[in-house]
Amino acid sequence: MKAVIFHGKGDVRVETVPDPGIEHPTDAVVRITTSAICGSDLHPYHGRIGVGDVFPIGHEFVGVVEAVGPEVRGVRPGDRVVAPFSVSCGACWYCRNRLPSQCATTGRGVFGMGKRRGSFPGGQAEFVRVPFAGHMLEPFALGLTDEQMIFLADILPTGYFCAENGGIRPGDTVALFGCGPVGLCALMAAQLFGPAEVLAVDRVPYRLDAARALGAVPLDAGQTDAIAAIQHRTGGRGADVALEAVGHESALTLALQAARPGGTVSAVGVYAEEAYAFPIGQSFVKGVTFRMGTCPARNYIRQLMPLLAAGRLDPTRLITHRLPLAAAPEGYQIFDRKEENAIKVLLKP
Amino acid sequence: MKAVIFHGKGDVRVETVPDPGIEHPTDAVVRITTSAICGSDLHPYHGRIGVGDVFPIGHEFVGVVEAVGPEVRGVRPGDRVVAPFSVSCGACWYCRNRLPSQCATTGRGVFGMGKRRGSFPGGQAEFVRVPFAGHMLEPFALGLTDEQMIFLADILPTGYFCAENGGIRPGDTVALFGCGPVGLCALMAAQLFGPAEVLAVDRVPYRLDAARALGAVPLDAGQTDAIAAIQHRTGGRGADVALEAVGHESALTLALQAARPGGTVSAVGVYAEEAYAFPIGQSFVKGVTFRMGTCPARNYIRQLMPLLAAGRLDPTRLITHRLPLAAAPEGYQIFDRKEENAIKVLLKP
Amino acid sequence: MKAVIFHGKGDVRVETVPDPGIEHPTDAVVRITTSAICGSDLHPYHGRIGVGDVFPIGHEFVGVVEAVGPEVRGVRPGDRVVAPFSVSCGACWYCRNRLPSQCATTGRGVFGMGKRRGSFPGGQAEFVRVPFAGHMLEPFALGLTDEQMIFLADILPTGYFCAENGGIRPGDTVALFGCGPVGLCALMAAQLFGPAEVLAVDRVPYRLDAARALGAVPLDAGQTDAIAAIQHRTGGRGADVALEAVGHESALTLALQAARPGGTVSAVGVYAEEAYAFPIGQSFVKGVTFRMGTCPARNYIRQLMPLLAAGRLDPTRLITHRLPLAAAPEGYQIFDRKEENAIKVLLKP
Amino acid sequence: MKAVIFHGKGDVRVETVPDPGIEHPTDAVVRITTSAICGSDLHPYHGRIGVGDVFPIGHEFVGVVEAVGPEVRGVRPGDRVVAPFSVSCGACWYCRNRLPSQCATTGRGVFGMGKRRGSFPGGQAEFVRVPFAGHMLEPFALGLTDEQMIFLADILPTGYFCAENGGIRPGDTVALFGCGPVGLCALMAAQLFGPAEVLAVDRVPYRLDAARALGAVPLDAGQTDAIAAIQHRTGGRGADVALEAVGHESALTLALQAARPGGTVSAVGVYAEEAYAFPIGQSFVKGVTFRMGTCPARNYIRQLMPLLAAGRLDPTRLITHRLPLAAAPEGYQIFDRKEENAIKVLLKP
Repeated sequence: MKAVIFHGKGDVRVETVPDPGIEHPTDAVVRITTSAICGSDLHPYHGRIGVGDVFPIGHEFVGVVEAVGPEVRGVRPGDRVVAPFSVSCGACWYCRNRLPSQCATTGRGVFGMGKRRGSFPGGQAEFVRVPFAGHMLEPFALGLTDEQMIFLADILPTGYFCAENGGIRPGDTVALFGCGPVGLCALMAAQLFGPAEVLAVDRVPYRLDAARALGAVPLDAGQTDAIAAIQHRTGGRGADVALEAVGHESALTLALQAARPGGTVSAVGVYAEEAYAFPIGQSFVKGVTFRMGTCPARNYIRQLMPLLAAGRLDPTRLITHRLPLAAAPEGYQIFDRKEENAIKVLLKP
Repeated sequence: MKAVIFHGKGDVRVETVPDPGIEHPTDAVVRITTSAICGSDLHPYHGRIGVGDVFPIGHEFVGVVEAVGPEVRGVRPGDRVVAPFSVSCGACWYCRNRLPSQCATTGRGVFGMGKRRGSFPGGQAEFVRVPFAGHMLEPFALGLTDEQMIFLADILPTGYFCAENGGIRPGDTVALFGCGPVGLCALMAAQLFGPAEVLAVDRVPYRLDAARALGAVPLDAGQTDAIAAIQHRTGGRGADVALEAVGHESALTLALQAARPGGTVSAVGVYAEEAYAFPIGQSFVKGVTFRMGTCPARNYIRQLMPLLAAGRLDPTRLITHRLPLAAAPEGYQIFDRKEENAIKVLLKP
Repeated sequence: MKAVIFHGKGDVRVETVPDPGIEHPTDAVVRITTSAICGSDLHPYHGRIGVGDVFPIGHEFVGVVEAVGPEVRGVRPGDRVVAPFSVSCGACWYCRNRLPSQCATTGRGVFGMGKRRGSFPGGQAEFVRVPFAGHMLEPFALGLTDEQMIFLADILPTGYFCAENGGIRPGDTVALFGCGPVGLCALMAAQLFGPAEVLAVDRVPYRLDAARALGAVPLDAGQTDAIAAIQHRTGGRGADVALEAVGHESALTLALQAARPGGTVSAVGVYAEEAYAFPIGQSFVKGVTFRMGTCPARNYIRQLMPLLAAGRLDPTRLITHRLPLAAAPEGYQIFDRKEENAIKVLLKP
Repeated sequence: MKAVIFHGKGDVRVETVPDPGIEHPTDAVVRITTSAICGSDLHPYHGRIGVGDVFPIGHEFVGVVEAVGPEVRGVRPGDRVVAPFSVSCGACWYCRNRLPSQCATTGRGVFGMGKRRGSFPGGQAEFVRVPFAGHMLEPFALGLTDEQMIFLADILPTGYFCAENGGIRPGDTVALFGCGPVGLCALMAAQLFGPAEVLAVDRVPYRLDAARALGAVPLDAGQTDAIAAIQHRTGGRGADVALEAVGHESALTLALQAARPGGTVSAVGVYAEEAYAFPIGQSFVKGVTFRMGTCPARNYIRQLMPLLAAGRLDPTRLITHRLPLAAAPEGYQIFDRKEENAIKVLLKP
């Protein structure tokens, strides 16, 4: 089959590799109908996170079940399905305690992230093997489509997790740092909690436009002092909740500055650094709550489906590119360079 | 001054009565600029709740502070203000524990509900005396207007309280029983919690139309079996949350039927009856949570103001009639008989 | 094997019946080492709840896995295990949403409750078949014993569920109605939430003594006006939380009276009646939250094990009788008549 | 009057200063009957936090109301009272939103902390002026004594806040870092939330003994690897909740290491440093929640009083020294050097 293979910094190629098969009785093989490039695919692409020299990449995909192992329950060949990006067993202490992204069995496995995350080949490919398929795969329902369901693999649950961790209450002012795909999903999710206002900070004009279209007040950090603007709009107090969807220390420091006394900072941007210069004195005086982590996406897939079906969440608005799988290298480049107003790039095998 | 005086069942009159004055050092006198007729004003009007033979009625009003007693802090003559419908001291155990509608000092006082609720003359008048004014009165802010702020006196907080008590989570299906003014406020408030769908049940076509305009799926209980329809739309399970905004036993029984196993029923319709034939066997099997009560409106006024200012809540859409105070008797009649598609009737002194 | 067979009102007999076997690939057979008589076994015994004419009874048991079907994961022959009283599949919508006692697959199945609850033969026997064994059975851990673990089958989770539903906060006053085995478990569980005081109401002196020994203030409803005493100890307000562990309407009415304005009533006593004369007027004025239902015991087994192991919960104090299985008829009689200060009666095959 | 005056690092003296009087109509003057030395008094004593050159120190005191200004409501001369350590107005946005330690009116004022915290003279003295006395002062009730109530000024609410922020659930394992007076109060408070086990880490043997006496498992960090021991007792996962009551970076880093994936770290140790090397990579992978800040003690005083009265909380066990006010310098020295097994040092004018 054809698959996108990561070869090193800035180097992804579409190559022919052996088709995956059932290796364990709880495996399924899924024929992929749509996959997508995620912001966290850029971490290995930028050389920030190592995945091993050569590896099939990609953790956002939907498709049709091609085959199942003898112990798979709940899905059958022919079912259209989505899987969460992190691979979990459904049975260990963490999985039973609603922490599937901490799964002890898979060692916090993730599709397409190499040896460091469990050596699960990725899903920017024609086929993928899905372990623990009875637990992992969610059948499509409610008339939902590939282009809706693919957002449930990662970035919509991740955005929702970010918003939920913020503890937003109706009437709150929310400050959002980062209007990339995850940030815009966090924005859509934040709107579900009834804030009076979401102030969305970024430096890329077309992404600020996208935030405005989703109901936020855009703040261009390249043009204005975002912290001053947030203070101004909140009577000098700061945001009730600050969401950090960038993953750079500078954005986290801004989020901690933006939060009001007694406020919450929720970060989903990926942090691989060992230490961060946390502004402890200021944060202690303010009494901040700081939440972070990788989304347990499995928990949210079923909860979010009715919102997609009812049109209350419409992440398909973020799709800017639909490319053939063979064009994955161009897709990475466009997405990485923020060319052509790229937000979400889909790959169709 | 002119005031609306309740004389008995179906009999309200606009009469000249003495102007109110400062009686206690914590009182204020407010010159009323807009008042409104509330669904609960119909309880005495229908003779369902006794308020004493003759009494100035009305508990929804906004206006301008005319005078304050020597111990009033926080508001001054000239301030535009709103007051919550229940009169509370701000200092007793209940007030300190966020239960102002249980205020021990005022005996659960309510404006315009007669001796039974503390003998506080009502606000469908030119002036009203407001006890504990430093605690009770909320100054206008954020550029809000009379026609927005008057909804904070009662029905918008009451609808919000109803929705909040339901514990709605994003993606839930909500069933709403009753699309009168409070029900429609509960609907607007429910939308702040991100439900996938609100199924709104009533028998009055123009009220169902109003519910649809606010994003609900209308279910005409006169045309269809509402419970069957709710079961159908929820895969046979029932609503995650059922909101009861009618105050009749039949509606409460429907709400308890509509809730799914493990669901919540939140009732704000006023119950004055001693006993209700609660379907205990069925509710026990389902494991229902049932919440009820009079809204502690004081708690919500400040929280809801930014939502009004941002346009996230727009209760002014419910205003169907703006009458002079002198036309109060016609206002009551129109509202009571649901004539002229009446939803909210304002009275302007 | 020998098993306790329910023959009709007041008539249980120990009889020889065929040994159970594996009927479905997800079944296990457990050799029972300790079983117990539950207060809810008295409902059929009293003829209050029908279970069919002749049926193996009992839903509290622990034992050793004798055999497992080919699809059972997580437990093996030889494991010492407990099962929750309600039979659930672990996979339906309710099971996935932490509502296993609502399991759609088993029709809210319960061991030993006859056709009405799924026709699952009971566990007051030498052996029992356990469906969905990988989900249902919890292996012993932390050095726990039969006499500790058997409380996890029903009454300790049920008491915990009752207390948790009450939403007890540190410093609260809790009123407990009913000091039978479930009530005393609710009392032990309530103490985990840090109340200032638990006021325990019953009419049976030895049960009140047991409540006192567990840290409660006993109130003998036969000697004193319990409501007046509760009001007196709470400055006239009433209990923050009222727990109802009797299952009679009179106790529920007392609990609703005992709760303070804004308080919560949590009922776990079993209600089989169609309608209950709910004091709606008074409860609406107070703004009560009323929670009820059958405990989803499966959810709590793992959470409570460390508390048993640490000695923070010690339900073995409730064991008053250890009888051979053959003496089950006497055990029922002693328990039913509250003879010999009976609280918890164990049956040892 | 006599008062304890801070003169500089390591230098406190008892000196005669003018008696305080009513300066604002909302002030009261309290004649102090018991005051105490707090761990945070050691911050200026160590020169870690500047309070200005010469200042009356002390923020834990109880006493008798001597005089009240004309606008004080709720307390009268002769009342025995306690005040929280932070000075708040009761009316600003923060005070109305349950954040009195963020009071905008007083600039996060604290008694006895000099100009940096609002210039409110301290309470290690014979008299103290209490601003906003109607809001600040809580009258004694329930038969409580000086030596119980003085713990409500700061360290018992602070310990409770620490435990509450941890979100402890029944059955959790809690790791506590620091067994000084605040740490031991956090331990007592943590026990109210029903943990299976509290693992208490310190290096001072007599403080570990005190922790053991309060039900914790002591871990001597000087003798053992505390993190390894916590991992061992939790099956390799780590603590559900880690409480940090030291205020040094090293302790915070340990707390972040000790928390399990998905766990919470709650810090109340005072941080005055600008930046802290937060282990962001590890904490992000684990998905930690980190809460911190100064306790809004005013919120907790009434809630904790019934627990003191019922004996469920007994902080008087921490009192090791009762000295005359004149002996304050020795008291500071004993407490600072951890001499004579000092935990809590009271000063009696």
